[in-house]
Amino acid sequence: MTSSSAPRGGTGIVMMNLGGPATLDDVEPFLVRLFADREIIQLPWQDFLGKFIATRRAPKVRKLYDAIGGGSPIRSWTEAQGEAMCRRLDEMSPETAPHRFYIAFRYTTPFADDALRAMKADGITRAIAFTQYPQWSCATTGSSLNDLWRALDRTGLKDAFEWSIIDRWGEHPGFIEAMAGAVEDGLEDFPEAERDDVLVMFSAHSLPLSVIDRGDSYPAEIGASVSRVVQAIGLRNPHLVTYQSEVGPVRWLGPSTEKVIEQFAKSGRKNLLIVPIAFTSDHIETLSELDIEYAELAHSLGMTGFRRAPALNVRTEFLDALADIVAQHLAARTPWSPQYVTRCPGCTNDQCRGIPSRVVSGATGCKPAASDAPSTVAHATPRAATRAVAAPAATH
Amino acid sequence: MTSSSAPRGGTGIVMMNLGGPATLDDVEPFLVRLFADREIIQLPWQDFLGKFIATRRAPKVRKLYDAIGGGSPIRSWTEAQGEAMCRRLDEMSPETAPHRFYIAFRYTTPFADDALRAMKADGITRAIAFTQYPQWSCATTGSSLNDLWRALDRTGLKDAFEWSIIDRWGEHPGFIEAMAGAVEDGLEDFPEAERDDVLVMFSAHSLPLSVIDRGDSYPAEIGASVSRVVQAIGLRNPHLVTYQSEVGPVRWLGPSTEKVIEQFAKSGRKNLLIVPIAFTSDHIETLSELDIEYAELAHSLGMTGFRRAPALNVRTEFLDALADIVAQHLAARTPWSPQYVTRCPGCTNDQCRGIPSRVVSGATGCKPAASDAPSTVAHATPRAATRAVAAPAATH
Repeated sequence: MTSSSAPRGGTGIVMMNLGGPATLDDVEPFLVRLFADREIIQLPWQDFLGKFIATRRAPKVRKLYDAIGGGSPIRSWTEAQGEAMCRRLDEMSPETAPHRFYIAFRYTTPFADDALRAMKADGITRAIAFTQYPQWSCATTGSSLNDLWRALDRTGLKDAFEWSIIDRWGEHPGFIEAMAGAVEDGLEDFPEAERDDVLVMFSAHSLPLSVIDRGDSYPAEIGASVSRVVQAIGLRNPHLVTYQSEVGPVRWLGPSTEKVIEQFAKSGRKNLLIVPIAFTSDHIETLSELDIEYAELAHSLGMTGFRRAPALNVRTEFLDALADIVAQHLAARTPWSPQYVTRCPGCTNDQCRGIPSRVVSGATGCKPAASDAPSTVAHATPRAATRAVAAPAATH
Repeated sequence: MTSSSAPRGGTGIVMMNLGGPATLDDVEPFLVRLFADREIIQLPWQDFLGKFIATRRAPKVRKLYDAIGGGSPIRSWTEAQGEAMCRRLDEMSPETAPHRFYIAFRYTTPFADDALRAMKADGITRAIAFTQYPQWSCATTGSSLNDLWRALDRTGLKDAFEWSIIDRWGEHPGFIEAMAGAVEDGLEDFPEAERDDVLVMFSAHSLPLSVIDRGDSYPAEIGASVSRVVQAIGLRNPHLVTYQSEVGPVRWLGPSTEKVIEQFAKSGRKNLLIVPIAFTSDHIETLSELDIEYAELAHSLGMTGFRRAPALNVRTEFLDALADIVAQHLAARTPWSPQYVTRCPGCTNDQCRGIPSRVVSGATGCKPAASDAPSTVAHATPRAATRAVAAPAATH
């Protein structure tokens, strides 16, 4: 019997994220895939309108990537994070070693299919789907998970792995400590005499209001992360939460980061520190949208102290946090967080929470109602008989 | 010299809240005042449309109050809370005793004017504006404060008091402990075998999206409160945050409590515990909307275990918390929280943060920019020369 704590071939950690175009030629296909994703944005005549918006935006976005070096750095940051995380895990949890990471981006290579095939080739049987978005949203982690499960189908690897999910970690003490350090670094970037004047703006990627109205927990989880960071620092500066990067013809959750910067600048405020609270690596939304576009806006309106807190990237506390999150997850032997079991009450996605593969056993504190439970489809594998299935079969 | 820590006549604590009609005949005037308040809801032709909506709703709302005993219990709860709080404060902080509470409801008697006049008659000179809404919103605490400052004008008592503000306390450990106790009591109300099945729904009063888009911190503060309560209990049940009591012809922040209950019931979920997270006393939204209206909806759709966590009312931990919040505030000698100084970036209310009276001195960690600082208008009183003014004069 292969137990989940002593896997053959070690532990595969699938690091799921949005991804970003590596080269300028990748920009248009990236956008086409993004605007085709009904789990983020639902458009009328999506195939047509999504592609239309994507191709129309592509030249402009291409220029933005050109200005930040010709492509997104998110892959190299994720690789560095994965390597450091696995090195730490091999020491922290020798019984689940070796630990290997596999990147699964949502809208660019490497895709989930690539991650699964590489994991299979490495002889991995125990897999963790580890979202790189700290706070849950169906539009981010949910979409990545659903694509991962579809990729199991596409690659014919449904029976190859036993899964568990790290579905959110926005209040993990290590993450909070790393974010607190980044905020402190950002504040120290201001002249000491002006530091107390700085307003701290925690900016997260926005979501269409339709996602919020379905019951997505994202805004509450963002609020919780911010509260923990503020407490960890003992922050006395005033702060607020804003949402950035709205795009397309639907209404998004506010207040808008861009509008708020404009309003503060116009009201005479001089010092603003933007803290990206929902992404962990630098990417187009930090390097271009915040550092170039909004910085120019702020300066043009007379705001002299417009700064951004550094992304976590390879900050040591963050690498420690990534390893600690996985180590705690492995030690707890739970298939997912207590929060994972509930689908949004207004969920319209039949695939949601359906996992067409095996899931590690483990006692969670809650027994989900049949109607909103994750599904585990039992497969006739030699190992199927030896494990307990945590969740009942779904009825949808 | 009268210092703020040894006031002549003790300390007056103005407990600010929405209020509720005490009798059925108070229902219509209450609604008329509510729908006239542009700090909550902005309507075209507000004088006309607000009154139209209020008078049209009045007969229906009158029936609702009839069903819960003919009036709102909020005044008697607030009185019991105030008495217990002051009793505790007299022991905890003899140097600021005696402590007296004065109720200032926003849309029904006793109004802020009544509170101010009573305070003056009692010889109070040191006053604390203590919001009874744990989490900040411009539509609730903001509106109450602005009305309080207008009442200073109306009553001619601008120079009578030295003020400080308890503007939010949604993460105060005592409040969190009290809420955690209420959630645990709610869960214990379910049969033990079903307890792990219960989904916990934290429900807060909704806000118009226009308020959110201006930069109101309410949703983030609600998320923070919920996160603290969940952590305090070690809650393993899944939970989510929803918003209730939307009314009138504007778009409100979701997800809607009512819709979510309906969706969960239709999906076959049997056990739901609603926790009012943004109000502390029973009132029409708990006793009627949750306990009657939504309960009937849930039952009609087959949900057998629909329950509500008890309101805090006179729960001992909550009475302790109220006293502790004030005692900490008095000991800190700050005029307000670090968060208070920032106006919403999209604020359109010229009165906002303008205090036409004296404010206690005290070092806060931040020096607000002139543009969004509270105003303190210096008055030529004998005591004006003896105190430091914490905030610069406003420029708006």
